[in-house]
Amino acid sequence: MSQLSRYASEVPPFHVMALLERAQQLTAQGRDVIHLQVGEPDFSTPDPVMDAIRDAMAHGQTGYTPAAGLPALREAIAADYRERFGAAVSPGQVVVTPGASGALQLALAALINPGDGVLLPDPGYPCNRQFVRLVGGEVQPLVLSAENQFALTTRDLTEAWQDSTRVAMVASPDNPTGNMLSPTLLAEMAKAVKQRGGTLLVDEIYQGLCYGQPAGSVLAETDDVVVINSFSKYFCMTGWRLGWLVAPPALVPAIERLAQNLFLAPSTPAQYGAIAALEEASLTILEQRHQLLARRRQCLLNGLAHLKVPVVSRADGAFYLYADVSAFTDDSFAFCVDLLEKAGVAMTPGLDFGEGHDHGRYVRLAYTCTESRLTEALHRIEHYLENL
Amino acid sequence: MSQLSRYASEVPPFHVMALLERAQQLTAQGRDVIHLQVGEPDFSTPDPVMDAIRDAMAHGQTGYTPAAGLPALREAIAADYRERFGAAVSPGQVVVTPGASGALQLALAALINPGDGVLLPDPGYPCNRQFVRLVGGEVQPLVLSAENQFALTTRDLTEAWQDSTRVAMVASPDNPTGNMLSPTLLAEMAKAVKQRGGTLLVDEIYQGLCYGQPAGSVLAETDDVVVINSFSKYFCMTGWRLGWLVAPPALVPAIERLAQNLFLAPSTPAQYGAIAALEEASLTILEQRHQLLARRRQCLLNGLAHLKVPVVSRADGAFYLYADVSAFTDDSFAFCVDLLEKAGVAMTPGLDFGEGHDHGRYVRLAYTCTESRLTEALHRIEHYLENL
Repeated sequence: MSQLSRYASEVPPFHVMALLERAQQLTAQGRDVIHLQVGEPDFSTPDPVMDAIRDAMAHGQTGYTPAAGLPALREAIAADYRERFGAAVSPGQVVVTPGASGALQLALAALINPGDGVLLPDPGYPCNRQFVRLVGGEVQPLVLSAENQFALTTRDLTEAWQDSTRVAMVASPDNPTGNMLSPTLLAEMAKAVKQRGGTLLVDEIYQGLCYGQPAGSVLAETDDVVVINSFSKYFCMTGWRLGWLVAPPALVPAIERLAQNLFLAPSTPAQYGAIAALEEASLTILEQRHQLLARRRQCLLNGLAHLKVPVVSRADGAFYLYADVSAFTDDSFAFCVDLLEKAGVAMTPGLDFGEGHDHGRYVRLAYTCTESRLTEALHRIEHYLENL
Repeated sequence: MSQLSRYASEVPPFHVMALLERAQQLTAQGRDVIHLQVGEPDFSTPDPVMDAIRDAMAHGQTGYTPAAGLPALREAIAADYRERFGAAVSPGQVVVTPGASGALQLALAALINPGDGVLLPDPGYPCNRQFVRLVGGEVQPLVLSAENQFALTTRDLTEAWQDSTRVAMVASPDNPTGNMLSPTLLAEMAKAVKQRGGTLLVDEIYQGLCYGQPAGSVLAETDDVVVINSFSKYFCMTGWRLGWLVAPPALVPAIERLAQNLFLAPSTPAQYGAIAALEEASLTILEQRHQLLARRRQCLLNGLAHLKVPVVSRADGAFYLYADVSAFTDDSFAFCVDLLEKAGVAMTPGLDFGEGHDHGRYVRLAYTCTESRLTEALHRIEHYLENL
C-alpha cells in the first residue's frame, strides 16, 4: 500500500468529530440533540449577499479572478478598515483567499522556514498547529494561565520567545475562549515581537463579534503585522469559503505568487457576494444578528452561573465560552460523551484546543443556536448535573 | 521589515503574467487582443448547475459540509466513474477539495516527507513544483523528448527514478501538451512505480476533453494510484473552485484529517452545483461544448500547418497545443511579447512549463475562444510572420 508521510500520519483527529458522529447516530434514532459545539453562525448568508451572488451568476461571472482577488473587493475591504475600524490599509496590502484557512496557510508559508519556531497559545485554534507543521515549522506552545482568564499578555510572549522563534500567532476575538485583546495591546505585542526579529500574526476572524467593548483591528495601531480575517463568522458566509489577509507591502508580491501557485484564485461568486457583505444593507442585518448573539451570550452566562459552572474566560468576543467543569469531572472528553448520551447536549472538550493547558477541566460552549434552545440545553444540563 | 521564507522568496512568477499585464494595457488603449493563453473554458457554468446552486442557496445551504464533501456528491462522483469510465470507485475513496489545487496539496502532503523526490515531467503544469516544495519535497524534473512528441513512457519513468524518489506525477490529458496516455499505459506506469516503492499521482483534470480517442480513467485499470480531478475544465466551473481526489482506501482517513485542518470544507453551493454537473442535463450541454472544442482544435491545427508552425505534441486532449516556433526565434518569451505588441495575439511561452526542456523553442496555444476569433488570430499571426 502507498506510503503515508510522517506529517499526515501525525495529524490527530478532532476529538469533537467522534462526538458528532455519535450525535448523528442519536439523531437518526429520533433523539433531539442540542448542538453547543458548532463553530459557525446558525444564520444563513444575508439576502443582499445572496442577491449579489445571483446577479454575478446571471452575468456569467463564473471564471477565474486574479489570484489576490477582484480589485473591487480588495478596495472594498480596505475602505471598510478605514470606515469601521479607523485603520489605513491600502487595497494592495489585501490578499483575498479561499477561507481564512487559505490565508493562514499563505501567511505561514511566506514567513516560516523548516525548523523555525511558532508560538501558539494553548488553548487555541487546533488547525494552527497543522499549518505550522505543513511548512516544517516547530510548534512552540504558549500555555496560557487560567488565573488570568486565559488572556495573553505581552510578558507571556516575551517570556516564551526562544532563539528559534520567528512568528507568534494571537487571536482577538479568540477561539475557544472568546477573549479579546485591545488594538493597543496587540500593537505592543507586535513591537515586542519585532524587536526580537519576528512577526506577529493576528487572527481577527471573529472581528465584529464583541460584547461590551468596541470592535477593533490591530491595523488601526500598526501595519507591522500580518492579519488574518474571514467572511465566515460575522458575515455568515462559512460555506462560501472566503477570507483574506493583510500584510506589510513588502511581503505582498511573494504572497501573491504563492496564491497563484497554491490556489489559482478564490471563489468568484463568493467574492461578488463579499463586496455586498461590506455594504450598508448587509451590515444592518449583521448588526441585528450581533445583538441576538449578545442576548444569547447573556442567557448562557446567567444559566451557567445558576448551575455554578464557572466561565474561566472573559468571553467578550466571538460566540464561545470556555467553562470549567472540574467540579464534576477531571476528564472533560468523557464528560462531553456522557452529557451527549444522557442529556442530548453536545459540547467540545478542551483536548481539541491544546494538550498543554489543563484541558481535562474545560469545555467550549458555542451560542450558535436560538435562545430557546439554549434555555432548553441549560435545563438538560441542570438535570444531568443533579443526577451525577 | 518582516522576514520572507526561502520557499516564498524562491517561487517564480508565471512569465505569462507579464504578458497579461501588457495585454491589459493594450486593451485599455483600445487595442483588440486575442487571448490564446487562457487556461479556462470560455463557456460559463452550465444552466442546470447554476439552477442547482440557486436552489441550494434558496434552501439556505450556506454552512459547512463535512471536510471530505457532501456524501451525495461523493456518491455521485463514484457513480460517474462507474457509468462513464467503467471504473469501480467507492464513495469513501473520494475526497472533494477546494479546486484540484486543494487535491494536489492534500495528495503531496499525504505522501511526501521532507527530502523525498517527486518526478515531474518537463514540460508540465508549473504549480506542481510549488506543491512539492511546500512540503519540503525535492523536484526531480523528468525532461521529456520532443522526438517523442513530449509523450511520457514507462521507460522514461523507470530511468528517471532515483533512490530518493517517492512519487511520480503524470497528467492525462496533459497541460501544456494536450497529450493523452491510455489507462492501460498509466496502469503499467503505476505498477512500475509501485515496484520501486513509490506512488503514481495521476492528474485527470482535463478528463473528458479528448479528440479521436475515448475519455478514460486510470482507475478503470488499477486503484493503486492517487487521482486528481476538477470541476473546472470539462464541467466549466473554474470560478467555483471545486475538485476532488481518489485515493486507495488506506490513505483516505489521513487525507480526510488533513482536509479538516487545512481547508475545513470545500464550498457548499459549489458542491450542490457539482451534483447537478454529473447529471444527464448538464452532460448533454458539456458534450456539445466538447464538440465545439474539437472543431476549434481542427481549425487551429489546420491554420498552424498552413503557416508551417509545427505542433510538436499529439494534442489529443485538453484544449492546448504545444507548438515549435524555432523557425522564427530562439527565445519564445521575446517572441510572445513581440507578437502581442505587433499583432495583438497572446500566447504562453514555454518557459512557464519547465526550464529543463528546450523551452525557448515552444509556445502553448489554448483554443478557448471562438472559431472566428481563432481564424482572426491565425490571420494576424500569418501577417506577423510574413513581416519578421
